[in-house]
Amino acid sequence: MPDACHVPGDDRGLAFGDGLFETVLMRAGQPLLWSCHVKRLARGCQTLDIPMPSLDALEASFKPDAARGLEVLKLIVTRGSGGQGYRAPEVPEPRLLVSYRRFTAPVERWRQGACVRLCELRLGHQPRLSGIKHLSRLENVLARQEWRDPNVHEGLLLDTQGLVVEAVSMNVFWRDRGRVFTPALEQCGVAGTLRDALIEQGHVDIAEIDARALLGVEALWVGNSVQGLWPVHTLVDADGGAVARWPLTTGGLQREAHRLLGYPDSF
Amino acid sequence: MPDACHVPGDDRGLAFGDGLFETVLMRAGQPLLWSCHVKRLARGCQTLDIPMPSLDALEASFKPDAARGLEVLKLIVTRGSGGQGYRAPEVPEPRLLVSYRRFTAPVERWRQGACVRLCELRLGHQPRLSGIKHLSRLENVLARQEWRDPNVHEGLLLDTQGLVVEAVSMNVFWRDRGRVFTPALEQCGVAGTLRDALIEQGHVDIAEIDARALLGVEALWVGNSVQGLWPVHTLVDADGGAVARWPLTTGGLQREAHRLLGYPDSF
Repeated sequence: MPDACHVPGDDRGLAFGDGLFETVLMRAGQPLLWSCHVKRLARGCQTLDIPMPSLDALEASFKPDAARGLEVLKLIVTRGSGGQGYRAPEVPEPRLLVSYRRFTAPVERWRQGACVRLCELRLGHQPRLSGIKHLSRLENVLARQEWRDPNVHEGLLLDTQGLVVEAVSMNVFWRDRGRVFTPALEQCGVAGTLRDALIEQGHVDIAEIDARALLGVEALWVGNSVQGLWPVHTLVDADGGAVARWPLTTGGLQREAHRLLGYPDSF
Repeated sequence: MPDACHVPGDDRGLAFGDGLFETVLMRAGQPLLWSCHVKRLARGCQTLDIPMPSLDALEASFKPDAARGLEVLKLIVTRGSGGQGYRAPEVPEPRLLVSYRRFTAPVERWRQGACVRLCELRLGHQPRLSGIKHLSRLENVLARQEWRDPNVHEGLLLDTQGLVVEAVSMNVFWRDRGRVFTPALEQCGVAGTLRDALIEQGHVDIAEIDARALLGVEALWVGNSVQGLWPVHTLVDADGGAVARWPLTTGGLQREAHRLLGYPDSF
């Protein structure tokens, strides 16, 4: 499995979105939540029947170095070339692409919270693809096109039945009667690694909620393994009007999330 | 917009399935149903808000030459690189990829008909993406993975409500009380150019049908602008058992389809 910064035009990741990706927070050249990323990638490979790259191949680009600050490592695994149309080759030769970008922690969002748009696009149900981080992501791209206002920081996505699923590039968490919940993602949505880790450590439970009920929760957050956890202070509709506001909620879930990511408790 | 046979790892077509494609039947270096392909690509570009390549750029690879036999031209248009995560760049610089492959007309399928599998995967509803031929095609890849038996020639896809939508890489047509129909594709599915042309010429109307009703139709076909029209002689379920059989139906719709594609009437 050769590393590459280019792929040929017949790569199935390009042709059909036939592959997976991971975006990993790196600090001083070391990954955060690495075991969660590896687990999700393995789940995706199994779902799509793509051979899982070896740990050695995935970790070959790590360069531990105290002088390196925050970075985001992006790993793309495609099924490679070959096959006939949608039909995959019997023995796929996956392609692994590795890239790094520098990253600045979004301290302002942690501190001031986020304004989140209730997106108009509804996620379609596809249980065969839900949870995994595959490359067929046009729904997320279309949802992100709904706004350009820089004061809107994320978009909340419902499914075709009106249930809350996720944010455009984050998961959603809410507090109700003192307990914290996140949607199940059995029909659609990406199961983020921060969400996985928070569930595993017992900080978050699974529940179902629709948009109307969400307006009445005690606190709302969006978060992922790169951006950390953002308290939501305002939910706006498609016209930009506020449909719900919350007092700023730091500590609690945010502290647990940031502990997992090596982010500071106070900022 | 440079032609390319490679794309960089940050191309959004690769990263997110953020783009479109067309597969065009070429005879002697000349395209068939070209205006339908251009129209669908334009519709896709408008839906995704990607600048449409110029006709000159799209046609630059045509090489009219009587000595060339049948070929398939594949055009991929991606949104190019840039943007920030799912967020598209404000001024996208699309990338156009062009490739050719030689093609042999599937005379055996025209003559003997096809055996089609009723796939287990159900297409999710996403009206915002239905009809266009975008790059986020994992549902089709997963459906095509359901069988390896070379005696099964295509797969029939239902949506989550059990309505007939399309075949894995073709559209579906059936005859009922002497009239020919195809599904609407308002919730999911790709609107093939052969289907578009047959509708435009008044040979096919739009109707809704579920799998059970399909078993009782007078005739069933699958087809696209490259493969022509295949009469379906047998529909099999996931276990491979026949759930419906039809006598071979040539002529009629097949003749009209093949006229549009320059394929012979008799073979």
